[in-house]
Amino acid sequence: MNMYDIIEKKKHGEALTKEEIAYFVQGFTNGEIPDYQASALLMAIYFQGMNSEETVELTVQMEHSGDVVDLGEIKGIKVDKHSTGGVGDKTSLVLGPMLAACGLKVAKMSGRALGHTGGTIDKLEAIEGFRTELSKEEFVKTVNDVGMAVIGQTGNITPADKKLYALRDVTATVDNISLIASSIMSKKLAGGAEIICLDVKTGSGAFMETLEDSEKLAKEMVAVGNGAGRKVSAIISDMNQPLGYAVGNSLELHEAINSLKGNGPEDLMEVCYALGTCLLVDSGVAEDEEDARDMLEFSISTGSALVKFYNFIAAQGGNAEICKNLDLLPLGEIHVPLVAESDGYIYSIDCKEIGLASLASGAGRRVKEDVIDFSAGILFEKKVGAYVNKGDVIATVYSSYEDKAAAALERAKDAIIISDEKPEERPVVYKIIK
Amino acid sequence: MNMYDIIEKKKHGEALTKEEIAYFVQGFTNGEIPDYQASALLMAIYFQGMNSEETVELTVQMEHSGDVVDLGEIKGIKVDKHSTGGVGDKTSLVLGPMLAACGLKVAKMSGRALGHTGGTIDKLEAIEGFRTELSKEEFVKTVNDVGMAVIGQTGNITPADKKLYALRDVTATVDNISLIASSIMSKKLAGGAEIICLDVKTGSGAFMETLEDSEKLAKEMVAVGNGAGRKVSAIISDMNQPLGYAVGNSLELHEAINSLKGNGPEDLMEVCYALGTCLLVDSGVAEDEEDARDMLEFSISTGSALVKFYNFIAAQGGNAEICKNLDLLPLGEIHVPLVAESDGYIYSIDCKEIGLASLASGAGRRVKEDVIDFSAGILFEKKVGAYVNKGDVIATVYSSYEDKAAAALERAKDAIIISDEKPEERPVVYKIIK
Repeated sequence: MNMYDIIEKKKHGEALTKEEIAYFVQGFTNGEIPDYQASALLMAIYFQGMNSEETVELTVQMEHSGDVVDLGEIKGIKVDKHSTGGVGDKTSLVLGPMLAACGLKVAKMSGRALGHTGGTIDKLEAIEGFRTELSKEEFVKTVNDVGMAVIGQTGNITPADKKLYALRDVTATVDNISLIASSIMSKKLAGGAEIICLDVKTGSGAFMETLEDSEKLAKEMVAVGNGAGRKVSAIISDMNQPLGYAVGNSLELHEAINSLKGNGPEDLMEVCYALGTCLLVDSGVAEDEEDARDMLEFSISTGSALVKFYNFIAAQGGNAEICKNLDLLPLGEIHVPLVAESDGYIYSIDCKEIGLASLASGAGRRVKEDVIDFSAGILFEKKVGAYVNKGDVIATVYSSYEDKAAAALERAKDAIIISDEKPEERPVVYKIIK
Repeated sequence: MNMYDIIEKKKHGEALTKEEIAYFVQGFTNGEIPDYQASALLMAIYFQGMNSEETVELTVQMEHSGDVVDLGEIKGIKVDKHSTGGVGDKTSLVLGPMLAACGLKVAKMSGRALGHTGGTIDKLEAIEGFRTELSKEEFVKTVNDVGMAVIGQTGNITPADKKLYALRDVTATVDNISLIASSIMSKKLAGGAEIICLDVKTGSGAFMETLEDSEKLAKEMVAVGNGAGRKVSAIISDMNQPLGYAVGNSLELHEAINSLKGNGPEDLMEVCYALGTCLLVDSGVAEDEEDARDMLEFSISTGSALVKFYNFIAAQGGNAEICKNLDLLPLGEIHVPLVAESDGYIYSIDCKEIGLASLASGAGRRVKEDVIDFSAGILFEKKVGAYVNKGDVIATVYSSYEDKAAAALERAKDAIIISDEKPEERPVVYKIIK
């Protein structure tokens, strides 16, 4: 077997065998196959595609290219959710405790913010004392005791994907559905969960802007996950405006805790219910969707989800008192109102631009090395479809620095369109894919 | 301008600008653009193609990536011919002196044998004392004095093509017509001739096996050459059996000298006449094709071409007495007859296999470092279409080594098919493309 023949085969549109894909992933990861052959293959894949067997094999090979998380010592059904990246998406913070309260085990490896999207790990680190680096023993113990733990990506997880993604990123070979799906799913599978629900975002703030593309990606990822022997489902949810009202780490934590207290924004809760229902039904804990919904609502109304969140924060060293006193969360000293410049309906909010405005306020990272201002962000008072009069406050920009607040305000303003016309209502969850 | 955008553009099927192609060729040659981006672009070109403007620009950029031969000090019209590689193809040795005798200037940079095809430089080096490395001054003086000189590829000619070809060779991106044409033509243009005729071979011994592919390549190369400001034509000639009767360096020299004496094989002479006619008409030396043909025939019948060959060999230090006494050329001590194993017509001769049989006899190179046995090769007595009786000698294998002769005999035997059916006659020259 040699790489030349593999490139030639794919170039002519033939499917690669399991052995050929394994040869490629292993050889590329250990440096035996040079970058220039890998990039030629990637471009051939861009043009000729991969069938579902090939995509599963690529995913599984990347999953096993490094460490895989062994959740064997955790008692119970291990579930996970994964979002393709959103703005104001604090779903994990709300849904995690809800699922734990329903008896599932949430052992989560999470990412950090980059560009216009936020990351769960950063949001948690806004809590004083919270540790996202746990030893394997601490991680397992926390999940067993509390039902939930969240850590940053540690160890040598999917090195093949890291290397391949870096190459795709500089050779214009990112935008292929099989490559995207295998990259996301390899990391997710290496996380060890048995049952997974994917939250594929669609719209102006999402990686995939059209519903059609989002659905394609969702189906591909579900197929890959199931092909690799896990139980995987997906929802397609709207990202044409931020989820909920808060964008920024402390602000989102604030909103998440309020949601666990029963005061969650409608759209955020709908996403949590949709994801949670899939996981509860797929795991067999709930009998059907209605039963699942009841269980999830019960976890909020009884306060059991909030207690889980409290215990989870405490277990990972954070100041859990924030659950009782939201003032313990840092908020930017500078706050500038974003006011309506005319009467009318909020016709649209460019979601990616809001993500970038939040980044400008200090809440995000342009490059990996940037330091986050946890207290920065944007808190909306109105969402798309609301009627405003000139001078009404639409949102407030928070930051520790005046110049950053000003830059964020400017950018956020440009992202919001007010019109006489009332916009069409969009669903929050477009589809469920199983 | 950056390489990522260039790859992305080509990936989406857009034409690259002159500036973008220049940026790529220059950046790749000087090492600023890494191999992995170049190979991604090459694969995108494989799928999306290049239009004629792009191909011309790529060619011209590669031509000027290193030294270009300046023939300015040579008086007269500088012409060149180029073959895409054949078996038994000694055209340059016969046509060169004919053209010189007609008053054209043949300043030729030639290649060496590799694989199943022979090289003019090796054939000339079979002559005792012949030097293929001349200083620029010697080269110019020889062409001015004799009308003809042949040297090996020297100096830093088309480094971009060398580097790009090496990359294509390991990334399965050789087989694109624009890339093939620009690679061949960049070297040819760097050779400095004003008027060029290409001999594109077609058939079992050729790089392009079908007439359709050969015609495509010929048209592409003619368009590229003309687009780059030279006068370029092409012929498509048959390579379904060796050209002439001799395959191997000394054997081919022998046949070339006999041809210059008026005893040339019909097919070889027809190729020489076709190429020569194009060059004489294009250069304006002949009024029309008939006139050109007369001039070429006259150069043979008067012996003036043979005299040019004599002077050319002498000028480059070789023993020109071979022109008078063919026994001065080395011939392998071992000679083994290849006899017909049944009665019938020679139905076909697999030309590539004969090239490889000749290589096995010692006449060629498997890798660049191989040392050639000039005295080895295969001399045919019959060609396709001839009727043979069982036991008739079809060819003789020459070598300095018994084992090599035996291996060559075996391979050559397998390449020849004898049948009751008479094969259809094929043209020697299929098409002229201007």
